[in-house]
Amino acid sequence: MVTASAPGKVILLGEHAVVYGEPAIACAIERRARVTAERTGDGGLTIHADDLSLDGFTVEYEGGPDGRPDVDVPAALLEAGMGYFEGAVAQAREAAGAPAAGVELTAESSIPLGAGLGSSAAVTCATIEAVTRELGVELDEREVADRAYRVEHDVQDGNASRTDTFCSAVGGAVRIEGDDTEALDGVSHLPLVVGYDGGAGDTGALVAGVRSMREQYDFAADTVETVGDVVRGGEAALHEGDLDELGRLMDFNHGLLSALGVSARTLDAMVWAARDAGALGAKLTGAGGGGSIVALDESDDTATALRYTQGCEQTFRAELDTEGVRVE
Amino acid sequence: MVTASAPGKVILLGEHAVVYGEPAIACAIERRARVTAERTGDGGLTIHADDLSLDGFTVEYEGGPDGRPDVDVPAALLEAGMGYFEGAVAQAREAAGAPAAGVELTAESSIPLGAGLGSSAAVTCATIEAVTRELGVELDEREVADRAYRVEHDVQDGNASRTDTFCSAVGGAVRIEGDDTEALDGVSHLPLVVGYDGGAGDTGALVAGVRSMREQYDFAADTVETVGDVVRGGEAALHEGDLDELGRLMDFNHGLLSALGVSARTLDAMVWAARDAGALGAKLTGAGGGGSIVALDESDDTATALRYTQGCEQTFRAELDTEGVRVE
Repeated sequence: MVTASAPGKVILLGEHAVVYGEPAIACAIERRARVTAERTGDGGLTIHADDLSLDGFTVEYEGGPDGRPDVDVPAALLEAGMGYFEGAVAQAREAAGAPAAGVELTAESSIPLGAGLGSSAAVTCATIEAVTRELGVELDEREVADRAYRVEHDVQDGNASRTDTFCSAVGGAVRIEGDDTEALDGVSHLPLVVGYDGGAGDTGALVAGVRSMREQYDFAADTVETVGDVVRGGEAALHEGDLDELGRLMDFNHGLLSALGVSARTLDAMVWAARDAGALGAKLTGAGGGGSIVALDESDDTATALRYTQGCEQTFRAELDTEGVRVE
Repeated sequence: MVTASAPGKVILLGEHAVVYGEPAIACAIERRARVTAERTGDGGLTIHADDLSLDGFTVEYEGGPDGRPDVDVPAALLEAGMGYFEGAVAQAREAAGAPAAGVELTAESSIPLGAGLGSSAAVTCATIEAVTRELGVELDEREVADRAYRVEHDVQDGNASRTDTFCSAVGGAVRIEGDDTEALDGVSHLPLVVGYDGGAGDTGALVAGVRSMREQYDFAADTVETVGDVVRGGEAALHEGDLDELGRLMDFNHGLLSALGVSARTLDAMVWAARDAGALGAKLTGAGGGGSIVALDESDDTATALRYTQGCEQTFRAELDTEGVRVE
């Protein structure tokens, strides 16, 4: 029996613009998915995931992956959730050269689901790590990242980015540009605070909205490029450990994202609550349209303010996690 | 006895960027300052302005402009308020060749003071018009605009722009670029709605903040230029009467202004209330940091939504006013 964990992430700077070749920066956060794997004799896959979804679900496949489970969660969520586990176990079985190994998984996560915080990537990475170790194989972080990306790519119909899986596998701050992913060395401390409105925008529609604006208006294309410049500034600020500067750039980035039409009333309310509480900067994180914001604050003031902000369902400190996927 | 009136205005697109040579578009709105002038025999200046400030004030100069009045309003407000009347009367006396003419003024305004809606320009234009007519002289709109600008320039220590006074004097939609002011023909209908948070940002500090950002960051300078591109798009949309497009551009402009650091929590809350109510677009108007937003909505839904929005102190429909300064 092996337990492995992997962190969630926030996009610190550059979401949406990254689709058009601009760089983005993501950070692993100290919120983890934990998966325990135990080899079983039956060749099947059993999953206990009580804490993963809002309602929780436990699924048992008798003998193979073909039977559909009978549980009380929305079909789409179930399909997606099962897809990550099934894909991760398939990757692990392949890596271990044990295609018919029976596996029992127990998963839990402290990363809110569907909040744009990389919960599926974390579950996928942790599952691959736990199962491969249980099957006697040790993968390096980058192979976990690569296999986890393939899982997300399949489950998300080819629309996954490498960001979440890479960030979860290697930890710390990472830079994404096109298909290139790079760990940013020397970033060991970022006092992040997350606020989550309990909802989520429609990522596909939001990405399509920015695409159509960018095609229709030169000034929108310019704004996308400007986001890239802000990200390059942020990379320098991170390198120098200049949190004041990083905060200013986060604020600026949020305004540009608002111009591109991907903010939301709740997100702006949380961003202002954070700024009024003394955060060095605050912005939406992820696809937008609802979901989460990330703020930079050494003190507890931002989290306290968010706790009393209408529309904020959940808030927590989320210090940068320098560790990626690991055995517990 | 002559009564003249002049409209307030909103900046529809382009505030702040206009400081750096980008174009901006302002619109006169159907909210007016009304000034009645009556020639008196004593050579002095008496002003009744009960409705002008929050507290109202009535001031009487006995025999000349040197005595300071004894009234219960903040000194700074009084100085500024008196400055506009004194300057406007001086301009009118000069234009009429009657430097010693005694004048009694009664002023009222339906434009909220200090809301960034051009109340001082409207009072100044209406005063010049009323007094010159009372003294038997008829100025054309552009001369009223020019003389009113000189008054604002003096009262505001050289920091006035020509926008407010030109817009109030000539009415309709106007384009400003550098020192050039131009009436935009063919714009006769704009269903504007104003929301006012009851406060005001510090214009000088906000302008200085944008200036310092622009000097420090190339991406901020790019953002200022992008605002100019949005304004050019808005001019075309106005010309074509395409309100949907104009609304989209207002939304975009608001995001860029947020990036430049001149929005505020109340302004964003009002902007979102308007959008959620079905406005075609909404943005802060004027210097920002507090003050007013302008939205585009043919229906009453935006005004209704703003009435119930926390932080919105006052809201009203403000249809484009095609008429500038006029005798009532």
